[in-house]
Amino acid sequence: MSAEKVNLVEKLGLFDEHWSPKIVGELNGQHVKLAKLLGEFVWHHHDEEDELFLVVKGRLRMELRERSEWIEEGEFIVVPRGVEHRPVAEEEVHVMLFEPASTLNTGNATSELTAPDLDRI
Amino acid sequence: MSAEKVNLVEKLGLFDEHWSPKIVGELNGQHVKLAKLLGEFVWHHHDEEDELFLVVKGRLRMELRERSEWIEEGEFIVVPRGVEHRPVAEEEVHVMLFEPASTLNTGNATSELTAPDLDRI
Repeated sequence: MSAEKVNLVEKLGLFDEHWSPKIVGELNGQHVKLAKLLGEFVWHHHDEEDELFLVVKGRLRMELRERSEWIEEGEFIVVPRGVEHRPVAEEEVHVMLFEPASTLNTGNATSELTAPDLDRI
Repeated sequence: MSAEKVNLVEKLGLFDEHWSPKIVGELNGQHVKLAKLLGEFVWHHHDEEDELFLVVKGRLRMELRERSEWIEEGEFIVVPRGVEHRPVAEEEVHVMLFEPASTLNTGNATSELTAPDLDRI
């Protein structure tokens, strides 16, 4: 493994799809991913993985069962394992994700949004 | 563990010290840290930990034995375990770090810059 730098904006310019995270880094069994979000995702949780969402551009509403949080540019939220959540992007949002390499985007809720094989860019 | 959001700029406003990472998040046995850097750090490596540096403000020069990389705002670099490195900040740089909870900032090179007990902010 070599130490190569990654430019977030440059990588985000390489794809347009929504809800299709791309792997841009790997360390300690964790993946760093970039994704573009638009619309409402599915309610789900991850049994074994905590998940970090850092907003790079735009604003994300993270719906939790009992409340929701607006995550603005330069803010992150960690959704602990087991916690039901639904990311909602009223306008396009760009996010960086940190999570274990084993993480499936829709967690326990398989749907047409499930992306089992992620590209590395 | 609850899902609380973290604002990077707000947290960075809570401290002034250089080379003294603060823990701002935890997930999957990893810590998310914020640090302010100024000057030259010590050459070191981490035997067991890969380390991610994301530049939030300013620019960081990551010296590696055979080359160096300038890491600009919005860029990150993963320094794999075992790789000798020395972060250098000619002017103040704000970084977000992502690394195992076990990581000691100076790795194998204990010095006056070693920070064994990190504050959570």
